[in-house]
Amino acid sequence: MKKHNFSAGPSILPQAVFEKASKAVLNFEDSGLSILEISHRSKEFLNVIEKARALALEIAGLNDSYEVLFLHGGASTQFLSVPYNLLEKKAAYIDTGTWSNKALKEAQLFGNIEIIASSKADGYKYIPKNFSIPSDTDYLHITTNNTIYGTQFHHIPETNIPLVADMSSDIFSRDIDYSKFSLIYAGSQKNLGTSGSTMVLVKKAILGKVSRKIPSILDYQNQIKNESMFNTPTTFSIYVNLLVLQWIQEKGGVKALEKLNKDKAELLYNEIDRNPLVEGYAAKEDRSLMNVSFFLKDQTIQQKFDTLWQNADISGLKGHRNLGGYRASIYNAMPIESVQVLVDVLKELEKKY
Amino acid sequence: MKKHNFSAGPSILPQAVFEKASKAVLNFEDSGLSILEISHRSKEFLNVIEKARALALEIAGLNDSYEVLFLHGGASTQFLSVPYNLLEKKAAYIDTGTWSNKALKEAQLFGNIEIIASSKADGYKYIPKNFSIPSDTDYLHITTNNTIYGTQFHHIPETNIPLVADMSSDIFSRDIDYSKFSLIYAGSQKNLGTSGSTMVLVKKAILGKVSRKIPSILDYQNQIKNESMFNTPTTFSIYVNLLVLQWIQEKGGVKALEKLNKDKAELLYNEIDRNPLVEGYAAKEDRSLMNVSFFLKDQTIQQKFDTLWQNADISGLKGHRNLGGYRASIYNAMPIESVQVLVDVLKELEKKY
Repeated sequence: MKKHNFSAGPSILPQAVFEKASKAVLNFEDSGLSILEISHRSKEFLNVIEKARALALEIAGLNDSYEVLFLHGGASTQFLSVPYNLLEKKAAYIDTGTWSNKALKEAQLFGNIEIIASSKADGYKYIPKNFSIPSDTDYLHITTNNTIYGTQFHHIPETNIPLVADMSSDIFSRDIDYSKFSLIYAGSQKNLGTSGSTMVLVKKAILGKVSRKIPSILDYQNQIKNESMFNTPTTFSIYVNLLVLQWIQEKGGVKALEKLNKDKAELLYNEIDRNPLVEGYAAKEDRSLMNVSFFLKDQTIQQKFDTLWQNADISGLKGHRNLGGYRASIYNAMPIESVQVLVDVLKELEKKY
Repeated sequence: MKKHNFSAGPSILPQAVFEKASKAVLNFEDSGLSILEISHRSKEFLNVIEKARALALEIAGLNDSYEVLFLHGGASTQFLSVPYNLLEKKAAYIDTGTWSNKALKEAQLFGNIEIIASSKADGYKYIPKNFSIPSDTDYLHITTNNTIYGTQFHHIPETNIPLVADMSSDIFSRDIDYSKFSLIYAGSQKNLGTSGSTMVLVKKAILGKVSRKIPSILDYQNQIKNESMFNTPTTFSIYVNLLVLQWIQEKGGVKALEKLNKDKAELLYNEIDRNPLVEGYAAKEDRSLMNVSFFLKDQTIQQKFDTLWQNADISGLKGHRNLGGYRASIYNAMPIESVQVLVDVLKELEKKY
């Protein structure tokens, strides 16, 4: 019996991906070898990474002024790579929660960081608006979706300086203009695959402008030159990336996924707004289509609610330890049927208490 | 039909590991979830990483003055983390090939690197001996096994300064005194699992002594505090690490594996020494038990040899592009029966030409 997995990441992937990946672990494309043991320089694997690269560009609607990298280290390593490669003097960051904070903390090791907007004082319930972007900064960094607080940028800031985004938790979930960004990075374990690989989409023209020496493994130009193989890449994770990217394409790309994601989010937010026992966390206009954070108004029914959803074969609904409450992560691969199961549990809770 | 995989890495793993990993991708320990989608903070995954940590210490015969980390980034990220965490003024490196070179190149960004011995002038055919280790260096770095040239340290240098080793390609392949090392790191994709995770065994007492600020993701003390979960760890790769560590223990640990590895290496080296058509690359006294590099004396029979081994369902025998020739990687998981197949091919070659 498959569970309804609302985990924030690692998180649900399409069932077809699990099935193909499981098979490849035994025998990859009838090669007589496991995907876990094939050389990253084999024809078979080069085919995997090249297809993944091409698909990522196609899904993002980007041309070849961008490069696609599949790197080690998670988004947290990008918190470091971004300033190493781009920060000469000053960078601007928008602080929308834990992850933006972690990103700017690492950048502070390399230069002057200006936090041009923050919703910290209000518990990160909203996305700051009406900020001004200084023109003398090397880049502006945003976290497009905030998994913990359940907020999301629905309007991408307009700026002439390079826009850098951590899209770990909402990449390829909606039809936005990806070419507004000069650099996009995303850990795999939400919308792209399993933990281990990190996708980077980078506009080549922004690179090579800092004066410091960059460690080889963190140097985007070096990684581009080596086609993501400066060292042995995370082969299995990249294979899972390819399977997920193929699934995205089969579903109809970001346009089709946005429609599905909006339907799922609407179904759940409508119930949260309607149900007198619960309340959402994020400001309505900034609500995330990916992570729905909510609380019980009455803490005394917590155990009853926990029993209800666990009995409905739901898992991963507990909120992040920094915020508490509940969080339903409804990434691309989450079927609306599973969201309906959660909505039904909320209705049942109301009926019973 | 399973191939005989002599690939240098990613490389052969025990068949039982492939089978268990494949099953876990569909349903991990009857949890109703794939290992690819379970939260790294779930009871199920915490159990995986804790077991892997304990087993690694046990197999290495180390006590709890050491910590075990499972990190992102491959050994190449450790080339950077080691100097970031340990290099205050000066470090000593022994240059035994491509990987030592890459390691010391990164360290040069952080301080004065003294190459106290090198076999570069002789094509890295041997392991340097009779060097002296300066007492005023922060650490001595060695690469215990050199995959490309097929050499291996059979005598670990004796020193009072912290000894740091890249053991990516020979960890847990032999019964050495692991406590001679203050820090050991190893990418997974040879003797520990699949690419993605990197194991670090570190003596806690050597940390916290440098004055520089260390980026969080590279900071060993931060990773220890966060139990390898400063960011989402490479969950699937760590699960494969656990499966491999369990297999090592079942086989009888490093003592038993050393015996098997010596038998395999002897079988192959004996044939190389006997067969008039081929010659080994590395100096005999420094030959690796893990990677056997050899050449055909007569290049004109190359295609015939390639056809022979490919017809025998052997794969991954081509030498590294930096050296050419052939390389048989016979890591822990390689059965002696597969080595015998290669020996038979070499004998057949001799008979035919």
